[in-house]
Amino acid sequence: MQIINEGITAPIGFKAADAQAGIKYQGRTDMAMVYSEADCTCAGTFTTNVVKAAPVIWDRDVVVKGGSARAIVVNSGIANACTGRDGYEICEKTADATAKALNIKPEQVCIGSTGVIGMQINIDKIVGGVEKLATSLTDGYDASERAAKAIMTTDTVHKMTAAEIELSGKKVTIGAMTKGSGMIHPNMCTMLCYITTDAAISSEMLQKALSASIVDSYNMISVDGDTSTNDTCFIMANGLAGNEMITEDCDDFKTFCEALDAINKDLAKRMAADGEGASHLFEVIVNGAKSKDEAVVLSKSVVGSSLCKAAIYGKDANCGRFMCALGYSGVDFDPDKVDIFFESKAGSILVVSQGAAPLFDEDVALKILSEEAVTVRCEMNAGNSSATAWGCDLTYDYVKINADYRS
Amino acid sequence: MQIINEGITAPIGFKAADAQAGIKYQGRTDMAMVYSEADCTCAGTFTTNVVKAAPVIWDRDVVVKGGSARAIVVNSGIANACTGRDGYEICEKTADATAKALNIKPEQVCIGSTGVIGMQINIDKIVGGVEKLATSLTDGYDASERAAKAIMTTDTVHKMTAAEIELSGKKVTIGAMTKGSGMIHPNMCTMLCYITTDAAISSEMLQKALSASIVDSYNMISVDGDTSTNDTCFIMANGLAGNEMITEDCDDFKTFCEALDAINKDLAKRMAADGEGASHLFEVIVNGAKSKDEAVVLSKSVVGSSLCKAAIYGKDANCGRFMCALGYSGVDFDPDKVDIFFESKAGSILVVSQGAAPLFDEDVALKILSEEAVTVRCEMNAGNSSATAWGCDLTYDYVKINADYRS
Repeated sequence: MQIINEGITAPIGFKAADAQAGIKYQGRTDMAMVYSEADCTCAGTFTTNVVKAAPVIWDRDVVVKGGSARAIVVNSGIANACTGRDGYEICEKTADATAKALNIKPEQVCIGSTGVIGMQINIDKIVGGVEKLATSLTDGYDASERAAKAIMTTDTVHKMTAAEIELSGKKVTIGAMTKGSGMIHPNMCTMLCYITTDAAISSEMLQKALSASIVDSYNMISVDGDTSTNDTCFIMANGLAGNEMITEDCDDFKTFCEALDAINKDLAKRMAADGEGASHLFEVIVNGAKSKDEAVVLSKSVVGSSLCKAAIYGKDANCGRFMCALGYSGVDFDPDKVDIFFESKAGSILVVSQGAAPLFDEDVALKILSEEAVTVRCEMNAGNSSATAWGCDLTYDYVKINADYRS
Repeated sequence: MQIINEGITAPIGFKAADAQAGIKYQGRTDMAMVYSEADCTCAGTFTTNVVKAAPVIWDRDVVVKGGSARAIVVNSGIANACTGRDGYEICEKTADATAKALNIKPEQVCIGSTGVIGMQINIDKIVGGVEKLATSLTDGYDASERAAKAIMTTDTVHKMTAAEIELSGKKVTIGAMTKGSGMIHPNMCTMLCYITTDAAISSEMLQKALSASIVDSYNMISVDGDTSTNDTCFIMANGLAGNEMITEDCDDFKTFCEALDAINKDLAKRMAADGEGASHLFEVIVNGAKSKDEAVVLSKSVVGSSLCKAAIYGKDANCGRFMCALGYSGVDFDPDKVDIFFESKAGSILVVSQGAAPLFDEDVALKILSEEAVTVRCEMNAGNSSATAWGCDLTYDYVKINADYRS
C-alpha cells in the first residue's frame, strides 16, 4: 500500500467540482460535487443521533434501497437538520436537479449538508449550484482539493488523502475527503467523509469494510462530546480498476481493508487536530486493559474530559485529572496499578506511578506538552487490550467559535 | 418548614472555626472545623469514581464502621487524591491530631480535602491548623460563614443555608455548607457538602434520607462533566433538639426529608450557578418523558453539552443544538413530537415546534437569554415523567481557570 498526496478524484473515472452558491457563506465556495462515470456499488454509515438530518435519512435510503450510486452533492453553511418535512423535500429536489443535470437517477445521488441546525435551505440556491457544478466537473489534484475546501465550515484546513494498492494484479486507488471541526463525537462515523475507489467490490463487502474501518478511526475521535445530527461516511466503488470483483472475505479484501483503515485513521487524526479552536492534537493510548471495550471506554473518557483538555491547552502536567477521568469512565480497575506517561516528539515522562504522582521534572513535562501533538499513555497493567483515541485541547477559541456560531 | 439565613452551626450544640494553615493558598483561610458537643449519628454519600481520594476512603469507614461522629476537618488547596499510602497516612494523622485536640476518638472525625490532585499535603501544616481550629470553635452566624468560606477553592461565593422544622413538638434545625465549582458532575454527590442537625434520628434513617435527597439535587448538576475523586456529602445529627428519635418511616421522617431536600436542591443550584467561569445558571427541564430515568438522561445530556453551554454563554438561540443533545443522549424518542422553549424572568419563547425550528423573534429570544438564570424546557410529549438538571455556561474563564489551575 502506498499513501499518495491526492484526493477524491484519484481513482479512475471520478471527477469533482466546487461552486459558490451563496447558501449561507459569502465570498467562498460552499458546494461540492463528486461524479463517477460508471455505476458504483456503495456503502455508508450514519449518525446514531435520534435526531437525524434530512440528508442522512435520504442517504440511508440510497444505501439500503438502491445500493447503486453515481454522484455526491454537498453544501456547507446549513445542515438541513431539525427542518421537518420541508427539509426532506429539499433533498428530493436536490437529487432531482442533480439527476437531470448529470443524466442519472435521483436515487443514485448522495446528499450531504453541514452547518447550522434548525434553518431552512433556499432550494433555488441549491439548484443554481448544482447546475454550475455539473458543467465544471474535472479530474486531477486541483478538483479534489477544491471539493475538499468547499465542504469546510469551521475547519481551518481541508482534509484529503488517497492510497494505491494492487488487487489481482491491477492497480486500485482509494481517494477520500472529510470535514469536521465542531459537534464532533462520532458515534457511527463523523461529520462528513466521502470515499471513492475504482475497485470492483460488491456493496455487501464494501459495507463490511467500511463498518469495520470506522470503529478504530472516526469512532475514536472527539472534539466536544457532541454527536452530530449529520454524521455521514459514504463510499462508492465504480470497478473501473478492472480487478477481480471482491464478493467475499479474501486476500484482496484484506488488502483493501488495510488501505481503507489507513486512510480513515489518518483523516480521523487530522479532524481531531483541526478541532474547533484547537492548538494541540491530543492522543490518548490505553494499554493493558482487560478488554478492548474497556480500553475504548477508558481512552474516550480521558480524551473527552474538559479538565484534561484544558490542561493540555495550558501545557499543565496536571496528572491527577487524567487519573480522575479514567476513574469516572465506568470501567472498574485497580488505581494502584496504573502508570501514566506524557509523550511527544520531545520525549516521554512518567507522571503517575502505581496510581500516585511521583516527583517529576516539571520543565521536562512542559517541554513535552509544548509540542503540537501530545500523547497521554495510560498503562492499566490489568490485561492485554489496547485502544487509541484522538481529540484536541479546549481553548478560548472553541468557546469564541461556538458562543455565536450562527452570526 | 422555614428556610433561615444561617449555616452549619445553626442546630443546637454545633460550633465551627476557620484557620489559615498555608496548605497551598496564602493570605486566606484554608481549613475549617465543625464540632458537635454530643455524639452524632452520621451518614454519607461519596464519589462513584474508581479513583477515590484518601479522605473519601477514610470517611466511608467512619460512616460504615462507626456510625458515630463528632467533628469534621476540611482543608482546601490540595485534594489528597492520587497520593497512595502516604495520602492515607495524612488522614490518619489528621484524625489523631483532631481527636487529641478535642478529646474525642479518631474514628469520630470526618476529613475533607479539595484542590489539586496528585500532590502531597504537608502534615505539619495540617496539625498546626487543627490546633488553631480546636481552640477557636464558636457558634453563631459568623462561625458558619467563616467555615463556608474556608473550604472554597475556585468558588466565587460561599454557599450555606439552614432550615427549621418541628418534629414531635420540638424545634429541629438543619444547617449546611457546600463548595464546588469545577470538576463538578456528581455521580453520588458533589464535591464537598456538610450538613448538621440537632434532630434525633438513627444512622439508618439518616442514610436513607441523605441517599434519597442527593438524587434530585447534587446528582442533577454538572459544570464540566468531570466526576471528582473527592465528592463527599456528609451529615451528622446530635439529637440535642430533643425530638422523639426517628427510627422508621413516619411523618417526622417525611418532614425531615422535605427540609433536607429543600436545602440540598438550593445548594445544588447555587453550586451550578457558581460553576467555574460561569455567567449563567443553565436549567434544563424535561417534561413528558416516558420514564423518570429517561427524563434524567435527557436533561443531563443537554445540560452537559459543550455546544449548548457555549450557546447559553453567547445568548445565541441556536435551538438545533438542544435538539441534537437530546438526540444523542441514548434515549429513543420521536423527534417530530418535541417542543422546546427558552425561558427566564424576561419571558418564554417557542424555538422548536414538533421537531423543527419555527420562525421566532430573535430579539425576544436574546432578551430571554440575557438573564442570569436561563431555562430550556423540553416537552417530549411521550409520557408523564419529568426531571430538572442544572449547569452553567461554557466561558473563556472556564478555560482560563483550568488551563493553569496548579500555578
